[in-house]
Amino acid sequence: MTADYKIFELGDFPLQNGAILRNAKLAYKTFGTLNAARDNVIVYPTWYSGQHYDNEWLIGPGMALDPDRYFIIIPNMFGNGLSSSPSNTPEPQNAARFPKVTACDNVRAQHRLVTEHLGISHIRLVTGWSMGGLQTFHWGALYPDMMDLLAPFCGSAKCSRHNFVFLEGVKAALTADAAFAEGWYREKPHRGLRAAARVYAGWGFSQSFYREELDLTTLGFASLEDFLVSFWEGFFLPKDPNNLLAMLWTWQNGDISANELYNGDFKAALGAIKAKTYVMPGETDLYFPPEDSRNEVAHMPNATYVPIPSIWGHFAGGPGTNPVDVKFLDDRLKELLAS
Amino acid sequence: MTADYKIFELGDFPLQNGAILRNAKLAYKTFGTLNAARDNVIVYPTWYSGQHYDNEWLIGPGMALDPDRYFIIIPNMFGNGLSSSPSNTPEPQNAARFPKVTACDNVRAQHRLVTEHLGISHIRLVTGWSMGGLQTFHWGALYPDMMDLLAPFCGSAKCSRHNFVFLEGVKAALTADAAFAEGWYREKPHRGLRAAARVYAGWGFSQSFYREELDLTTLGFASLEDFLVSFWEGFFLPKDPNNLLAMLWTWQNGDISANELYNGDFKAALGAIKAKTYVMPGETDLYFPPEDSRNEVAHMPNATYVPIPSIWGHFAGGPGTNPVDVKFLDDRLKELLAS
Repeated sequence: MTADYKIFELGDFPLQNGAILRNAKLAYKTFGTLNAARDNVIVYPTWYSGQHYDNEWLIGPGMALDPDRYFIIIPNMFGNGLSSSPSNTPEPQNAARFPKVTACDNVRAQHRLVTEHLGISHIRLVTGWSMGGLQTFHWGALYPDMMDLLAPFCGSAKCSRHNFVFLEGVKAALTADAAFAEGWYREKPHRGLRAAARVYAGWGFSQSFYREELDLTTLGFASLEDFLVSFWEGFFLPKDPNNLLAMLWTWQNGDISANELYNGDFKAALGAIKAKTYVMPGETDLYFPPEDSRNEVAHMPNATYVPIPSIWGHFAGGPGTNPVDVKFLDDRLKELLAS
Repeated sequence: MTADYKIFELGDFPLQNGAILRNAKLAYKTFGTLNAARDNVIVYPTWYSGQHYDNEWLIGPGMALDPDRYFIIIPNMFGNGLSSSPSNTPEPQNAARFPKVTACDNVRAQHRLVTEHLGISHIRLVTGWSMGGLQTFHWGALYPDMMDLLAPFCGSAKCSRHNFVFLEGVKAALTADAAFAEGWYREKPHRGLRAAARVYAGWGFSQSFYREELDLTTLGFASLEDFLVSFWEGFFLPKDPNNLLAMLWTWQNGDISANELYNGDFKAALGAIKAKTYVMPGETDLYFPPEDSRNEVAHMPNATYVPIPSIWGHFAGGPGTNPVDVKFLDDRLKELLAS
């Protein structure tokens, strides 16, 4: 089997926390063709544990992200198993010793891919779901002159304290399993993965989603327990625990101002984003609640607050689970790209 | 040391699931004096893992629950370590073999305490926080002619599917620790307890509570991590894991209609509640969201929806953590008792 994606070799890549990720690899996939003017570029980063495959639901002919019009780049986040990750990095930086990577590190690596490797100096749109939204905000703050448009959805520019706590619960459940062995497991710590999945289940979808039994009526599961096992445990079990924890650290430490450009001044970092932006929270998202998006928009000069009217919680934004929400998102992206 | 509470011996107590809890014990504490007319009775059940001590913040001279005026009975819930529980029941019904007890079983036992043992036939008010609210609803549905007033706060008449899922996460985190040993631990499975605590932390308080840093500014913790360790882990570690899981099962299976009176007809059970009722959700409670309370009130003939305006999440209702919320609750209870 030939891989459907490419690897950009970053070489020895210095990280914010002082470590150097040796022979760092950035896996990416492109769709469509770069036009002669080199002005039809969309960057679309991945989300927590997602790989580029998991982003494809928002791309297609006739959609906003139309490969017949745009050159769409999906860079895989470090830790997701395709770009450098605990699971695919050779000793000594493997497994539990994989260094801490920030969202800023991710976007700086992506910037090298886009500029050095692909020869692109201007981006039309950066967009992404969840941690893809976090990276979208980073693009805007780190390279404010480089793009016209931003559309982070169900994400934030900085991990909120509540979001941090939710992730502590996921991490604690996963690592409570002694089989995790501080990251030096030989066999999958399946109890910990299943526990993390059950913790996540209450956060991923909203109270109303469960009240209205969309897991049964729309997603077609046989019972709540079937949903917890077949959907949630099934989602977590194939994933590498160290990868999950590496990305979780990236998420918890996400902050567009945690770098030498802004020195922790979050409002200044938001204020520096020049691109026309739609900040699109899910109205019932429990860990990226609309209030946080509203606060961000208040400090951004060119941003509009565009909540997604949905009871699908965080899944209002992906991964293509609910057609009504996909239509809403796609329409807003078309609107933005037409402006 | 003399115990500050009494034990009502229930004898061999038949449970809804078919088991008989042998030599069942109901621990309770009373405040104030039963008057000659025997019409000044308030019943105030306990909450998840709480003991009667943990209910005392709402009782006091000058408060709605004034022991100078009312005879206040706090019955301890089965599983809470004082009434019959996995931790205090002798073999063979001890530990992981403690039988499944419903909220209906709890309230039937409390009814025997109140009628048989204390000789009371009429109750002025039943009130309670969280699972205490669940028991309050049960009092109303099981004994609709027995009381004038009900005031469940931050609770529900039936465990919602989302609430069930949240509790699955807590349970999975606790039991992912191999030291739990399916309930036959010799030493405390502290990793599992700590993990359960961290899972709970995101649910107990609202996103806004954490956003506004009330853990630091109002509760006085030094950092978010200090709050997670000193408050949350400190809260869970002293508790017996089997007790926690016994009460968790009671919670997950709470439903005022799951008995032979209503045969699962939830609306009929709500409709049968005659007492004048204030249903008081916390406006930002993440696991007893206001919508569920509104739905309940819609099916109750004599109920009013009275949300607690607070960003303290579930802790808007207790245990006396926020003075502003205590004042709101106390005022509403005074209003109700004056009617």
